[in-house]
Amino acid sequence: MEPLRVGICGLGTVAQGVLKVLQNNASGIRRRTGRQLEVVAVASRTAKPEVDLGGATFSTDVMALAARDDLDVVVELIGGENTALALVERALANGTPVVTGNKAIVALHGERLFALAAANAAQLGFEAAVAGSIPIIASLTEALAGNEHDWLAGIINGTSNFILSAMAEQGQSFADALQRAQELGYAEADPTFDVEGVDAAHKLTILTALAFDAGFRFADVYTEGITKITADDMEYARELGYCIKHLGVARRRPAGIEARVHPVLVPQDHLLANIGDAMNAVLVHSNAAGDTLYAGPGAGALPTASAVVGDLISIAQGRSRLPRMASAEALRILPIDEIETAYYLRIPSLDQPGAFARVATILSDCNISIEAAIQREQTAPDAGEGRWVPIVILTHVVKELVMNEALIRVQALPEVVGEITRIRVEHFAGAD
Amino acid sequence: MEPLRVGICGLGTVAQGVLKVLQNNASGIRRRTGRQLEVVAVASRTAKPEVDLGGATFSTDVMALAARDDLDVVVELIGGENTALALVERALANGTPVVTGNKAIVALHGERLFALAAANAAQLGFEAAVAGSIPIIASLTEALAGNEHDWLAGIINGTSNFILSAMAEQGQSFADALQRAQELGYAEADPTFDVEGVDAAHKLTILTALAFDAGFRFADVYTEGITKITADDMEYARELGYCIKHLGVARRRPAGIEARVHPVLVPQDHLLANIGDAMNAVLVHSNAAGDTLYAGPGAGALPTASAVVGDLISIAQGRSRLPRMASAEALRILPIDEIETAYYLRIPSLDQPGAFARVATILSDCNISIEAAIQREQTAPDAGEGRWVPIVILTHVVKELVMNEALIRVQALPEVVGEITRIRVEHFAGAD
Repeated sequence: MEPLRVGICGLGTVAQGVLKVLQNNASGIRRRTGRQLEVVAVASRTAKPEVDLGGATFSTDVMALAARDDLDVVVELIGGENTALALVERALANGTPVVTGNKAIVALHGERLFALAAANAAQLGFEAAVAGSIPIIASLTEALAGNEHDWLAGIINGTSNFILSAMAEQGQSFADALQRAQELGYAEADPTFDVEGVDAAHKLTILTALAFDAGFRFADVYTEGITKITADDMEYARELGYCIKHLGVARRRPAGIEARVHPVLVPQDHLLANIGDAMNAVLVHSNAAGDTLYAGPGAGALPTASAVVGDLISIAQGRSRLPRMASAEALRILPIDEIETAYYLRIPSLDQPGAFARVATILSDCNISIEAAIQREQTAPDAGEGRWVPIVILTHVVKELVMNEALIRVQALPEVVGEITRIRVEHFAGAD
Repeated sequence: MEPLRVGICGLGTVAQGVLKVLQNNASGIRRRTGRQLEVVAVASRTAKPEVDLGGATFSTDVMALAARDDLDVVVELIGGENTALALVERALANGTPVVTGNKAIVALHGERLFALAAANAAQLGFEAAVAGSIPIIASLTEALAGNEHDWLAGIINGTSNFILSAMAEQGQSFADALQRAQELGYAEADPTFDVEGVDAAHKLTILTALAFDAGFRFADVYTEGITKITADDMEYARELGYCIKHLGVARRRPAGIEARVHPVLVPQDHLLANIGDAMNAVLVHSNAAGDTLYAGPGAGALPTASAVVGDLISIAQGRSRLPRMASAEALRILPIDEIETAYYLRIPSLDQPGAFARVATILSDCNISIEAAIQREQTAPDAGEGRWVPIVILTHVVKELVMNEALIRVQALPEVVGEITRIRVEHFAGAD
């Protein structure tokens, strides 16, 4: 069979990883797939003469590469949004299959891209866009295609997981753990996209589209990062039998689909609680398969390259299929007000008799029941008059709207001397 | 597109699960795949009038169903070996694609079946043969196809994992845990295939064939079950920072491929250590993807049906490909004597001064270094003269042949009053 003629846009770490995997594993890939994957052209705005391109030609014009009609597939690995989107559209419009690791363009423009791909009968592979080498896209769209999914929950941002793991294991503050992550290359100089949850929200948008035929609705995904989590929260969570993870959660509800990215208290003995360091993991609850978990490195040159090469092989073997995005019904993404979870509350309060009772009374008035509470003396930054202690409460499940109203009233209590921290709690026990 | 015409051989729990999934999830499957999966015929030696066959015809002649030439795919779910093999061969010889959940016929006759399938251009799906709903076959042969694998290790027998988990968590004996597993339906009345490792060896044979192009070499897979593990071993392992799991391990070595099924001490903080109950999990270490983990229910009607239906959808969409089994070189499966691991040893010994020293001297003579040891007084079944204590030793990595020779000498010591228990230890740290 003719070699698959591959053109690569980009020459950053992932693109170099792809070149390396295709070179190092060439004979195995040819033996297993019956076809050779040949990189014939590489384009990047910056030349890197030190990189071994094999026999590929090099140019600095990525759009020209995308427009070539002698390629069997174009790989987009330049990152960013506008140019990447333009070149993917150019290749698809040309009928050339595309493989991309760009979560932003798939999350923000997925509908348009898949329509364009379908109209031009060109495949679009994007396994590398979510969770590195973990085959979560293939599993959702292929292996689990016989299932209806109830929910999925994933640790899908390695930077946040590294920081939270360091805070949990070493008692570090968020700032110290972030600095450590930056020193080790797990976080960028400007970590906003990772620690504010935007990167995870891109990925959850894609997973939600695939698992629930919900379309690509990035703007509707509730997004909250990890910057407000403190070492104290970690410690209280631990005492209560939980650990704090940053999760993307999508769930089918009678009224619509939940799609949300935020910190979550997860029971310590839960599989997701044991996913440490910069690892990623996605747990999917399906009506036939049950709970299946997919874990592995969520980033890095070679793991991401593994996913890109997997997509290339799928195209080379004629196995690639565009996911069907058409939905039987128009699904609503539920506003965060409408979701129901349990809550962890940390309420900075003056150390006065009756403070806890007043908080408990408000919660009770709002029909919010308390599952557990911790109130401990603590010497802390002085809050004007007296000493303060945090009141820590774990609630049963309640609608977020109700919790918001209760928290407005609690926050207004004279004993409450600082901003209340609220972290959602998930048990993921069986179906909903 | 025309419906995919499916014939099912068998009407046991898994076959009923497949019927149920195809009925319950029909509209989602049609929407996502663009094709209807229609069960037109069911055959089973025993009629079960209570089962809703949808519109399918029923007969008691499974071979006649396999021979029909108006089916797009034959699903083999009768289990057992001879009839199952014959009907799969009949369908493939006819050019009809087959989906099977039968690990025994794939492990024992894989080479012949895939050759027959290839010769007749008929697909053969077998995702359901290994680890229930976990898409480990698809992941190895498709998503990870760009990788060379260094090793894989799996908890691939749910019964054994359930028993070992119960022993670890509740301090039960093997016999009590087995009885509990039988009461709950996790173990059969005759549990031999599960607790002696044969079922896991079937599955490891398949994984080894796919991951290492090693062919289906069931007879060469070292197989040891969990029947000799005691509650004491569980407790000593815990003290040493480990837990005991029954694993299938396959590993590429310079001299050949390790393929072995036996109990293993796994560090307590390892991902595989946290796979409890009857769950399955496979960890794969690949040269680009890194360590990826796949976990989920390893058995049960609906999870297994999920895998069967996934294969049917793959065939319906024309995505199914026969794995290429041809090996570049003839790979040797290493005899167990040649493998290298660390060991846990429990040596029943008289409580006499010098016993430990004599054991240590023999190990030292054999160049086996001791990593940790426990020697504790214990009142136990009296061994003739005096009291005895177990000497528990954790060694560094050594060749099994060397360990065997050392153990012959240790066993012959006058102080050693019972059979030595030896359990292999794996750390799975990075590549080999």
